[in-house]
Amino acid sequence: MSKRIPTKIYLNENELPKYWYNMNAVLKEKHEPALNPKTLKPCTLEDMEKVFCTELSKQELNTTDEFIKIPEEIMDFYKMIRPSPLTRAYYLEKILGTPAEIYYKFEGNNTSGSHKLNSAIAQAYYAKKQGLTSLTTETGAGQWGTALSMSCAFYGIDLTVFMVKASAEQKPYRKAIIETFGGNVIKSPSETTEVGRKILEKFPGTGGSLGCAVSESVEIATNTPNCKYVLGSVMDHVLLHQSIIGLETQKALKKYKIEPDMLISCVGGGSNFGGFIAPFIKDKINGKKNYRIIAVEPASCPTLTRGKYVYDYGDTGMISPLMKMYTLGNGFIPSSNHAGGLRYHGANPIISKLYHDGYIEATSVNQTDVFDAAITFAKSEGILPAPESAHSIRVAIDEALKCKETGEKKKIVFCLTGTGFFDLAAYSDFLNKTMENYIPTDEDLQKGFSTIPDIPQNK
Amino acid sequence: MSKRIPTKIYLNENELPKYWYNMNAVLKEKHEPALNPKTLKPCTLEDMEKVFCTELSKQELNTTDEFIKIPEEIMDFYKMIRPSPLTRAYYLEKILGTPAEIYYKFEGNNTSGSHKLNSAIAQAYYAKKQGLTSLTTETGAGQWGTALSMSCAFYGIDLTVFMVKASAEQKPYRKAIIETFGGNVIKSPSETTEVGRKILEKFPGTGGSLGCAVSESVEIATNTPNCKYVLGSVMDHVLLHQSIIGLETQKALKKYKIEPDMLISCVGGGSNFGGFIAPFIKDKINGKKNYRIIAVEPASCPTLTRGKYVYDYGDTGMISPLMKMYTLGNGFIPSSNHAGGLRYHGANPIISKLYHDGYIEATSVNQTDVFDAAITFAKSEGILPAPESAHSIRVAIDEALKCKETGEKKKIVFCLTGTGFFDLAAYSDFLNKTMENYIPTDEDLQKGFSTIPDIPQNK
Repeated sequence: MSKRIPTKIYLNENELPKYWYNMNAVLKEKHEPALNPKTLKPCTLEDMEKVFCTELSKQELNTTDEFIKIPEEIMDFYKMIRPSPLTRAYYLEKILGTPAEIYYKFEGNNTSGSHKLNSAIAQAYYAKKQGLTSLTTETGAGQWGTALSMSCAFYGIDLTVFMVKASAEQKPYRKAIIETFGGNVIKSPSETTEVGRKILEKFPGTGGSLGCAVSESVEIATNTPNCKYVLGSVMDHVLLHQSIIGLETQKALKKYKIEPDMLISCVGGGSNFGGFIAPFIKDKINGKKNYRIIAVEPASCPTLTRGKYVYDYGDTGMISPLMKMYTLGNGFIPSSNHAGGLRYHGANPIISKLYHDGYIEATSVNQTDVFDAAITFAKSEGILPAPESAHSIRVAIDEALKCKETGEKKKIVFCLTGTGFFDLAAYSDFLNKTMENYIPTDEDLQKGFSTIPDIPQNK
Repeated sequence: MSKRIPTKIYLNENELPKYWYNMNAVLKEKHEPALNPKTLKPCTLEDMEKVFCTELSKQELNTTDEFIKIPEEIMDFYKMIRPSPLTRAYYLEKILGTPAEIYYKFEGNNTSGSHKLNSAIAQAYYAKKQGLTSLTTETGAGQWGTALSMSCAFYGIDLTVFMVKASAEQKPYRKAIIETFGGNVIKSPSETTEVGRKILEKFPGTGGSLGCAVSESVEIATNTPNCKYVLGSVMDHVLLHQSIIGLETQKALKKYKIEPDMLISCVGGGSNFGGFIAPFIKDKINGKKNYRIIAVEPASCPTLTRGKYVYDYGDTGMISPLMKMYTLGNGFIPSSNHAGGLRYHGANPIISKLYHDGYIEATSVNQTDVFDAAITFAKSEGILPAPESAHSIRVAIDEALKCKETGEKKKIVFCLTGTGFFDLAAYSDFLNKTMENYIPTDEDLQKGFSTIPDIPQNK
């Protein structure tokens, strides 16, 4: 019998990770704490609980437990949607003619179409357990909104989703799927909130931004009894839930004794990237492993590669806690010709810290190069990727082509976060050559930076 | 440790079936042969080859080999998209409060969104092997067109898809995904063929039908050098390829010693139903097993439950071979308020024969009941089903509810053929209560029956 590595590596149900991995417990130096925007003091549990579920607030502040047990009820749901396969990209390797081995962890094989469901179900579970009756959230590309509407339907919780207006109009079927699962979709900015009305007054006709949708969601949550706000990225507890991706990846690699040379994933707010790299980071910090860890972002929203490492608000309305992170400024909005997600102005504090301390790399890519890679991948591997995920594909292909030059048999592992079923308008634009690239000028970036708060910590 | 059956049963790569299952080798009495429409004599290999690839023609006429080896190249592709999971519907059981065990084989976890890819890749492979440079086909709901465009992209073959006009307009993104994979989509009926022009003249403004799209595809294929016609259902060789579904299901059930009491799947032309039941039929015919095998069809296109078992054309243009099958008449077109697929006028000859001989049952269901079941399933099992697949869900739920009455712990297994990502307009209609049911009157059916050819065999 041949020792061929299977095309798809599946874990058995009893091999599924039973604990999430908490990177905050293993950072050599903790990242700086979130600050209460009024007092400018570190957020306490009480501060957090005003907006978030109690259990999620505790997870956010937990910097000691490396492993956190996944509740049995969440495990049972995970068994419906997981494990996701780790796939050897035999055909992609073949058409590239590379000696490299390419693997991808595919998180898109569920109705939400992405990894977002891993955290959505956990957040809905904790909300239910706490006796909440409704949740609010925002969604950009729509993957998070879909995942959360599925999760709320599962637990019988009402949901209001503020959807970035540009996305809602580009992707009417995303809105429809959220509604099919019972979610109430409001295009953001909207007239339903004070912050929405202010933004509309200042920027009439704006397509909105994730930061603005966050502000609206938080406003409704804090004004509604038995209602909290949840979000699908940026926060450390979201990365905690997403660590299931990395934990499964690690187990699958070990099962076939595959030692990765590089781990690649895209970064918007950082949820998939953080979850994917979580269990790999300890050995990188300790120097036991020397794999490269590469964050990929769109050139049109270059948070890590061109942002500042300072305290900033998580939202445009400047009501959220202040977080120390790479940011383009809470007022930054990427050009409207940028398709899909990865349009958030900041990056999760753990990721920002790891990048600042040199444990991870970051690179940015152009939109048309991303779609070109997406189509190469789709035609060879039979999966139509989400544009977000295709950022990772672009870099994986580029690295594999470098191996073709050097003859190195590097093992490249990337996270394929979701499917492109709801991005066909963007694919059509690319095929019809009406898609453009956008790289913000230094002047454009300055405008965003000017919205960073002028507080003592930023001096 | 508990002996709980896993939520998802996956086969290992080395457990994947290496042979397709040919029901024609085990029918107690062979079904009557396809007839050359000009001579009214049984189709020979030469007749078949004029339209179809040689190897597929041979498979169509093979009534002796129970197992047919899957070529290595197709196995390699199957390893990318298979195995599909057999899932225990623990949460659906729970919300129904039924003592029944419900299992579903989910074929929608690939970019084509359905089981159609199982046969599409095989047909593209044989076309490539024969040195063809282009293929033509038709698509209704768009699943087959997507699957074939992916397969042709994989092998570098040109593809023209005649898409039923009503579907193309209901599902613009289906068209876009076919084009993303390089397929050329033409709305049918079209001005590009003689038969299309005739139909447009007779029925201006028609939304088209699968039968009409077949005629147009065949016309182009027979008039173009190095081009053949392929199709995604109805033919015996398609069911042969789809037997991979049933073979995997059977293996997964055996792995956990699950003895099914009933097998349920939807029928349009019959490809998923035939493939799903293929390896189970021998024991049913021999009387070794007494499981029920239930075909589900839409009340608006009641081929098995209200059709005639006679010779009819496979296409509206009456140029295809004549097949002995249950049919509503090649001129039958379901009401335009019928959403999704399962709109073909006939049913595959093997299935028709099995139904006629009493080995399988058939039932029909109303559209709104189908969508109601779909949403119950989506909210509990976290998968948005294709409307076609939801026909099976409806009957599975009804049978599970009967068990609730009787207290029986029946084991219900159904095939979940695909996802509903491209059917959100129909879901919105259902949610907005603008969806209607349609049950053809006897008079409506008479109109269809009047298009059945008046040939000696039908006397």
